[in-house]
Amino acid sequence: MDTPSSFGSLSGPRLRRMANAIRALSVDAINKIQTGHPGLPLGAADVATVLFTQHLKFDPVHPDWADRDRFVLSAGHGSMLLYALGYLCGYEAMTLDDIKSFRRLGSKAAGHPELDLAIGVEATTGPLGQGLAMAVGMALSERMLRSRFGADLVDHHTYALVGDGCLMEGISYEAAALAGHLGLDRLIVLFDDNGISIDGPTSLATSENQQARFEACGWHWQAVDGHDPQALSDAIDAAKRADRPSIVACRTTIGLGLPNKAGTSAAHGQPPSMEEAAAARLAYEWPDAPFEVPVDILADWRESGRRGGADHTRWRQRLARADDTTRAAFQAWQSDDLPEGWRDAIKACKRRFSEARPTEPTRQSSKTVMSALIPAIPNLIGGSADLTPSNLSRPDGITPVSRDNFAGRYIHFGIREHAMAAVTNGIALHKGFLPFCATFLCFSDYCRPAIRLSALMEQKVLYILTHDTITQGPDGPTHQPVEHFITLRATPNLLFLRPADAIEVAECWELALETQDRPVALILTREAVPPVREGFTTDNLCRRGAYEFAPASSGAARVTLLATGSEVAVALGARAILEENGVPTRVVSMPCLEIFDQQDEAFRRSILAPDTLRVSIEAATTAGWEKYVGPDGVIIGLRGFGAAGMPDELMDHFGLTPEAVATVIEDKLAQTRA
Amino acid sequence: MDTPSSFGSLSGPRLRRMANAIRALSVDAINKIQTGHPGLPLGAADVATVLFTQHLKFDPVHPDWADRDRFVLSAGHGSMLLYALGYLCGYEAMTLDDIKSFRRLGSKAAGHPELDLAIGVEATTGPLGQGLAMAVGMALSERMLRSRFGADLVDHHTYALVGDGCLMEGISYEAAALAGHLGLDRLIVLFDDNGISIDGPTSLATSENQQARFEACGWHWQAVDGHDPQALSDAIDAAKRADRPSIVACRTTIGLGLPNKAGTSAAHGQPPSMEEAAAARLAYEWPDAPFEVPVDILADWRESGRRGGADHTRWRQRLARADDTTRAAFQAWQSDDLPEGWRDAIKACKRRFSEARPTEPTRQSSKTVMSALIPAIPNLIGGSADLTPSNLSRPDGITPVSRDNFAGRYIHFGIREHAMAAVTNGIALHKGFLPFCATFLCFSDYCRPAIRLSALMEQKVLYILTHDTITQGPDGPTHQPVEHFITLRATPNLLFLRPADAIEVAECWELALETQDRPVALILTREAVPPVREGFTTDNLCRRGAYEFAPASSGAARVTLLATGSEVAVALGARAILEENGVPTRVVSMPCLEIFDQQDEAFRRSILAPDTLRVSIEAATTAGWEKYVGPDGVIIGLRGFGAAGMPDELMDHFGLTPEAVATVIEDKLAQTRA
Repeated sequence: MDTPSSFGSLSGPRLRRMANAIRALSVDAINKIQTGHPGLPLGAADVATVLFTQHLKFDPVHPDWADRDRFVLSAGHGSMLLYALGYLCGYEAMTLDDIKSFRRLGSKAAGHPELDLAIGVEATTGPLGQGLAMAVGMALSERMLRSRFGADLVDHHTYALVGDGCLMEGISYEAAALAGHLGLDRLIVLFDDNGISIDGPTSLATSENQQARFEACGWHWQAVDGHDPQALSDAIDAAKRADRPSIVACRTTIGLGLPNKAGTSAAHGQPPSMEEAAAARLAYEWPDAPFEVPVDILADWRESGRRGGADHTRWRQRLARADDTTRAAFQAWQSDDLPEGWRDAIKACKRRFSEARPTEPTRQSSKTVMSALIPAIPNLIGGSADLTPSNLSRPDGITPVSRDNFAGRYIHFGIREHAMAAVTNGIALHKGFLPFCATFLCFSDYCRPAIRLSALMEQKVLYILTHDTITQGPDGPTHQPVEHFITLRATPNLLFLRPADAIEVAECWELALETQDRPVALILTREAVPPVREGFTTDNLCRRGAYEFAPASSGAARVTLLATGSEVAVALGARAILEENGVPTRVVSMPCLEIFDQQDEAFRRSILAPDTLRVSIEAATTAGWEKYVGPDGVIIGLRGFGAAGMPDELMDHFGLTPEAVATVIEDKLAQTRA
Repeated sequence: MDTPSSFGSLSGPRLRRMANAIRALSVDAINKIQTGHPGLPLGAADVATVLFTQHLKFDPVHPDWADRDRFVLSAGHGSMLLYALGYLCGYEAMTLDDIKSFRRLGSKAAGHPELDLAIGVEATTGPLGQGLAMAVGMALSERMLRSRFGADLVDHHTYALVGDGCLMEGISYEAAALAGHLGLDRLIVLFDDNGISIDGPTSLATSENQQARFEACGWHWQAVDGHDPQALSDAIDAAKRADRPSIVACRTTIGLGLPNKAGTSAAHGQPPSMEEAAAARLAYEWPDAPFEVPVDILADWRESGRRGGADHTRWRQRLARADDTTRAAFQAWQSDDLPEGWRDAIKACKRRFSEARPTEPTRQSSKTVMSALIPAIPNLIGGSADLTPSNLSRPDGITPVSRDNFAGRYIHFGIREHAMAAVTNGIALHKGFLPFCATFLCFSDYCRPAIRLSALMEQKVLYILTHDTITQGPDGPTHQPVEHFITLRATPNLLFLRPADAIEVAECWELALETQDRPVALILTREAVPPVREGFTTDNLCRRGAYEFAPASSGAARVTLLATGSEVAVALGARAILEENGVPTRVVSMPCLEIFDQQDEAFRRSILAPDTLRVSIEAATTAGWEKYVGPDGVIIGLRGFGAAGMPDELMDHFGLTPEAVATVIEDKLAQTRA
């Protein structure tokens, strides 16, 4: 590695030693536990060293500094790179003990990076390609915040380190196309271009021209020797000057230093043996004991880690000097707290709904609520994957975000559900905005991997998912959710809210906004639903996940109907028939099973009334309802896919009319009597 | 539209009238039902007319002719285009009555095209981008079959009509990159390039250079006036001559003929009013009554539909002249029947496993079975999304498929899970091969939309999904499935098979291969499992979905442990502890809940033994097990995400050791007694 001594404040050989500190720590950690991915940390150590010592603006003492540069390791399997950097740069929370217990339960040095600002991990990564898309979200946030608060307070870059795997995933194209379209010039992607994937050379599976590909969607492209610090630093400088997103293909040798394995797929994920580790250390000229970093090298790293401190101080001074309104707004937007008054906006909608009693799709009621929230929550922002007029996800009174208008509040994500959700995760992670995104519930499948990451990272992302059942009708089974209900409900840490009418929509929006540390899926109808709730209550009846909607009108209830969303109206219809036939029947609305499950047993029993015949009604998979109806209950739903047809035809065909439900129940009661 | 009269056998004006027949039928059908998407059929009618009258090789009288050209309408919302073509070309099963009941329940003219060869629908489409990827699978099948059976029997093109939406989806890039890499020169994509999506002009969300994008991944590109028949036909000719996959951007006006709406997003999915329909008919010079096609135009279409008959006859003659072995093999590969002897291969593995009693990961046992199946089932083919050495999905004795070796049997799909699954669907739809594909169970999320289509289209696609629980360990929660179990089980028409050890792996492979008309997910461990089954049985004990694995060793069982996969060993460990402590305990293995659910009640009761304390043990979401353990049972599993750690640490941490399970059960029994 022949780097000019004039390089930065550190000589080429010195930088090489610093990079080798990353390599040695990575080899030691992976060798000790005998699991992990040495390929990337050893290959990309030089890239990371140049970035972290010469370019990245960060302050390990204040890892949540709002105006720090963001760095996302999209190729998350190379996690040891991040942990080594964290320790070397002086993030106090990343200790040598964590590195020594790499991949063990409880170690901060987890198998793949798990969101933790204290150790410099900006996003949970590992599922490939998503890190790049989250970086796009962060870079977009920077532009949008900057347009609101100015360059004094918001002026940073977002970097992502991606591998061949990231760039083969479809989401990487979606995210790149969006970034190019929006001209996100503060986004700089470093491509660890080693030509190797797990199966072997990437030529086994791809022969794409990456330069042409990125240029096709409006990116600035460079290719450099990924082991040449000066060339890398120059490229990053050029990337910063570019007026568009920039990618630097850094040609590296995967697993550099591993005998026989370097440059081959064996280096990707095979832990080195003792002999290989020893040989690698020899190649790095690294005679020190395992996990030991020479004092002078550690000092260089720590000094480098302190680089950003002065920047940070100057930024704090600028924040202090900002006018009070700006400073207060900036700080409020960075916090998880919502501005005062947002509940009033919800309440006003609820009151209006209780007076007007609209028969309308819940997506329409949701748009009304969102439009009321737009002035109340000025950092509420989001968009749809090209289904704006269908999702009704664009509130009134806002303009689209574009490369000429980052002050806009509505994002046209394009027909890119997966990138949409991951970009939205990036916006949430960046902090500054409360983001939502929208598509059809059925196409939550297209963004499922990113929804999962929202939940795993405990990010408050609002998913507006409309056209929620077969009542979407004529589009047919490709557009009709079935298993999506249980899929999202079984996703840990996600709230699945399905309101029954306009009033419940307002209440569910309140629950969604109250929520901290978890994503919310708001499940809405395409078709009009009647106003089933009557009268205005200050209480949010949805707050405990379920409530008795209508008691048996006389005597002890014999039947309890459990329903959600548009099926609450079906349940009420069935109740009318049953009561007419002398069967006292109560109806329970269950807008959120996850919240309900967290209630105490007495409440749950009072709602479920186990001494009655319990019947669930939901126009989706029957899976999961056994828990609520018990072994003697009845589950009314779909046992297969939907079908194309008009909504009424389908509800009839699938036995989801009040009449059909009542008949099933009367038959069941007759059997029980018999 | 000024086309030279020398065009084909039909004059330009005549072709224009034929295209207008598609338009008029589409307007009439969508106008009548007042739902549907006129934009594409009206815009792309000329493209389709040129293709179907001048190029596409097909025979409506024999719609399943093996060597027909394939045509996939990837932009499935334009379904009326297909139905109009079906009727006009003379597919008997597509009647005018179906078109008149477009989008109604029971009509063959469903909202989006649903696989039905009898009406010329080669694939279910609508979820965008997947049609293109399925077409890639079909084109790949053609090359692979041709390399085996020669051009006499296999010599056709695959066409896909895609919209802007398809091309924004990530899967389209994945599929295009794979097609370019493999040089699939028989693939011709017609891009309905109308510059409009639902939200408005595509410029709202994209500014990608499509030509550069496709050329970057090795495609041949042309752009033509999509309303100029001669230019279109010439372009298709040039595409046929190209030595690589080809895309023709056909510049069209969306909703051509609709007053005010043509060329705008309003044309995409809004049904025309009576006035608009009347104005459009005027523009088409179409005075005939609704749903009426002038006799001469219909005659031209029907004649065009008969074009392929002679080709078909010649092909049948070539098939008849082929040598007996070739003909028999070709016909056998086209059928759903497996060759004789395949069960012997399974049985031999089972015998070997019962003798050797290997302690090994079930993914390893699966590789052993697959290797035995390779000679037994010569059309078994598939691959992995770059996880070959992890999935162990490459059987012994086969070579990779490449542009130089279509005779190979292993496909390196690249890190493109979504395209992998959709391409595999395309291979299944094409017929000729029995396809499998592989990734980690956790990343089934990345291909979930295509898995859903496998199930909806009733295609026998084998999904090999490994690293099935937290026992995959140190990779952490991003790589550990939780909700995936219930997601796949709740997907209609999918079999989820999770074998407990090597012998069950062999049995589950037998079930997977026996299966018709549904996809199968084979769920396999990363870690070694002990050989829990003892002895060789000719019976497949997994056949009814569940079986008593170990009875209580003395007296009536008080406890029934229900377990799947690697947790059967945990259950056996817990049983040993419980029985030692005087609690008679039986263990049930439940490799397939979906099959078990289909058994008669007596069998189900005999297995579940409702008079015992039922306890399920599965290292995944607890959701869904209430159905099997009943209200008084115990569900042992995960209530949140996994974590990074060593497998043993995690099983301990999450209470999934025999000791922890036994303790929970003893506590429960004590409570019950108290």
